[in-house]
Amino acid sequence: MDILLQYVVKSFDRSTVIDFHYNELLQEYNWGLADQPQNLEEILMHCQTTLKYAIKTGHPRYFNQLSTGLDMVGLAADWLTSTANTNMFTYEIAPVFVLLEYVTLKKMREIIGWPGGSGDGIFSPGGAISNMYAMLIARFKMFPEVKEKGMAAVPRLIAFTSEHSHFSLKKGAAALGIGTDSVILIKCDERGKMIPSDLERRILEAKQKGFVPFLVSATAGTTVYGAFDPLLAVADICKKYKVWMHVDAAWGGGLLMSRKHKWKLSGVERANSVTWNPHKMMGVPLQCSALLVREEGLMQSCNQMQASYLFQQDKHYDLSYDTGDKALQCGRHVDVFKLWLMWRAKGTTGFEAHIDKCLELAEYLYNIIKNREGYEMVFDGKPQHTNVCFWYVPPSLRVLDNNEERMSRLSKVAPVIKARMMEYGTTMVSYQPLGDKVNFFRVVISNPAATHQDIDFLIEEIERLGQDL
Amino acid sequence: MDILLQYVVKSFDRSTVIDFHYNELLQEYNWGLADQPQNLEEILMHCQTTLKYAIKTGHPRYFNQLSTGLDMVGLAADWLTSTANTNMFTYEIAPVFVLLEYVTLKKMREIIGWPGGSGDGIFSPGGAISNMYAMLIARFKMFPEVKEKGMAAVPRLIAFTSEHSHFSLKKGAAALGIGTDSVILIKCDERGKMIPSDLERRILEAKQKGFVPFLVSATAGTTVYGAFDPLLAVADICKKYKVWMHVDAAWGGGLLMSRKHKWKLSGVERANSVTWNPHKMMGVPLQCSALLVREEGLMQSCNQMQASYLFQQDKHYDLSYDTGDKALQCGRHVDVFKLWLMWRAKGTTGFEAHIDKCLELAEYLYNIIKNREGYEMVFDGKPQHTNVCFWYVPPSLRVLDNNEERMSRLSKVAPVIKARMMEYGTTMVSYQPLGDKVNFFRVVISNPAATHQDIDFLIEEIERLGQDL
Repeated sequence: MDILLQYVVKSFDRSTVIDFHYNELLQEYNWGLADQPQNLEEILMHCQTTLKYAIKTGHPRYFNQLSTGLDMVGLAADWLTSTANTNMFTYEIAPVFVLLEYVTLKKMREIIGWPGGSGDGIFSPGGAISNMYAMLIARFKMFPEVKEKGMAAVPRLIAFTSEHSHFSLKKGAAALGIGTDSVILIKCDERGKMIPSDLERRILEAKQKGFVPFLVSATAGTTVYGAFDPLLAVADICKKYKVWMHVDAAWGGGLLMSRKHKWKLSGVERANSVTWNPHKMMGVPLQCSALLVREEGLMQSCNQMQASYLFQQDKHYDLSYDTGDKALQCGRHVDVFKLWLMWRAKGTTGFEAHIDKCLELAEYLYNIIKNREGYEMVFDGKPQHTNVCFWYVPPSLRVLDNNEERMSRLSKVAPVIKARMMEYGTTMVSYQPLGDKVNFFRVVISNPAATHQDIDFLIEEIERLGQDL
Repeated sequence: MDILLQYVVKSFDRSTVIDFHYNELLQEYNWGLADQPQNLEEILMHCQTTLKYAIKTGHPRYFNQLSTGLDMVGLAADWLTSTANTNMFTYEIAPVFVLLEYVTLKKMREIIGWPGGSGDGIFSPGGAISNMYAMLIARFKMFPEVKEKGMAAVPRLIAFTSEHSHFSLKKGAAALGIGTDSVILIKCDERGKMIPSDLERRILEAKQKGFVPFLVSATAGTTVYGAFDPLLAVADICKKYKVWMHVDAAWGGGLLMSRKHKWKLSGVERANSVTWNPHKMMGVPLQCSALLVREEGLMQSCNQMQASYLFQQDKHYDLSYDTGDKALQCGRHVDVFKLWLMWRAKGTTGFEAHIDKCLELAEYLYNIIKNREGYEMVFDGKPQHTNVCFWYVPPSLRVLDNNEERMSRLSKVAPVIKARMMEYGTTMVSYQPLGDKVNFFRVVISNPAATHQDIDFLIEEIERLGQDL
């Protein structure tokens, strides 16, 4: 306990984010597994060493991933979950957790805007699997025979998603036997939003070839730009061509908790399914990802195999609570309790304050750098989510013409600054190229413990570490 | 902390296993989610209530599932994992955990018997997903074009597994677009072991129809009987027909840790892939399931999508540690640390003692009931795993002829006893029908805290609760 609580305190005191000495890790410490047991002292030492080299994802200057922060109620709830050590497949062995999943998913569907919170859903091990579920269910809805007969029995199915969407759509298509060639990437505007006219054009094109469009996955909060696809326009097109509308709101779903920002997801209520990861913008400990489905019963028909040794039909309670057979998994970790307990502790208004604060911080960052010397924004206008994307241009590059040489040199700036950040351990922020845009920084803020001073620090640190490049 | 530790103590003190008052749960307690926050006292009360109605899966008289027990080092490790709150996709944000996964999977492959522990693997969210991975990789190995082109581009693929195998094989086939009709169930002998001659016959039959056998999934430790398929004979057939051999050792894999019992998995070293769930027989907290693959690199080629925003190629460390792209998931929970820390604390010899003890307890139970009045064994001979399957026949049924009426009445005995067990909360054990066998009890023992006295108690309790039926 002391070791753990010490780590928690260190996550918030603005000491280093990381101690990234992987060579030392690899070579100097013995991580091997042996025949003989070790004593308690040695075990505690391993815990300390593990945490010494851990990345402090709760640190307010860790801007590296979409999942950051360390909520104390969420952490306590996760400890309780570990202590209860049970499995979500039957009500028999997880009565409270099954009930809480029911209550929480219903509430999330209400917030999406489905009448009375009706529908279905599940907590799955991450957004990629949630998106795969959506694809699986959409396919089953259109061609239920695929469950028994496989893809050989159905025409060629085509899925549509934007070129800025998450790679899990292609991963899902590969796994489900649909094939990545059957995922058509729709063009985005310069803000990273799907262009509806291109979507309609590509749907028509697929139909002309005799293929069957079966799913459009719109993104609410893209990974890099934080862009929101125009859901209302997408919904109209899906309705017109009778295609399943999925919204991947893994990152953007949290904004539904905010009266100020939820308009960015207008149209989500017209989706057939929604991925929403409370472990991202809502700060719930990893993992907590929900897949929500408008039509009830579909998940069950799609996935059930009715194993009599797990789902006995003659038990003495209401069997509709045995939800395990609608999952792809058999054993399923309890991911709901941390979200539920945080919700009780913060209330919807607490999540709203959390979201609003993070978006305000992103705007603060944007306002600092938009006109600051040495910065170029990757796209114009203030961010819709907390993603702020920019190049830092060191003094030596500012004098160069905007040609290939400059691009080539600029592409090397962010990796070097990032490597230095990690060596010093002061802060962490991700970078990546995208399309024809060379490596740029993407700051994301989902930790409500971050402050204006932390944002100021980040800018100073980028300049300190990058000015000589 | 007090609430959690109190629960831990209560899990071991032989007080009730459950307080199964679901109507009260449903109706009298307010589980709803509101706009306004609650205070700390209320939050603590929710934790208490949640644990009050939790099933004590660590209780030594909980024989209900394959995953039981509550290991204190495993629990501490899981708390540390929650506190570190990170994600397995890149070495950048989980350096230690990625290393530990590497070390642990290598050790598991050594134990399987692959030369030098070479190969590949991943911790996945449960055995069903591990089995799905095996199917996915086997398909990709034979027809790599399926990744881009989908199932339409390949001939009809057939998978083979025994009629006693886990339902996840069919679930996986449905999801992957192969179809459940393409999973052929091979006959078992009366002990629940796959009959090799039937396997060969069905492979030939499929080939004669022009279909392509691509996977045989043998089971090492079936869910109900705890049977081990004859892996050597299966391996010979797989070699002869060039079919991927998968071994679903989710339940039986733990026996590899025991010098006394590992012979039951002879031939596992010839498999192409193995599912092995340390969260079952090895008592690691949920979830901890490994999929191990003999050929290195295949998982990566099968699943990678090379998203540049996650797996940057110009980072300043050895990128072979960025293992995330071989997963189906994007975000992936840290499941390895609890296994690794338990292994350090117990040593391989500690796991061996744990396994040997549980198997000895199962034999003790078998020896008590095999000749006891009122008991009938579901299959002859002592159990190979800890599964002990039997009918309890109440006095009123003992006088009846072995006809349909007796069967019909016998089928109702186990559900009533189970319901009464849950009402009293004294113990829990599962029952199910299987094939033409009506409801029978299946006791499983994976908790090393169980004792001979707990087994004696179980028998007394079955008789106390069932003698009037």
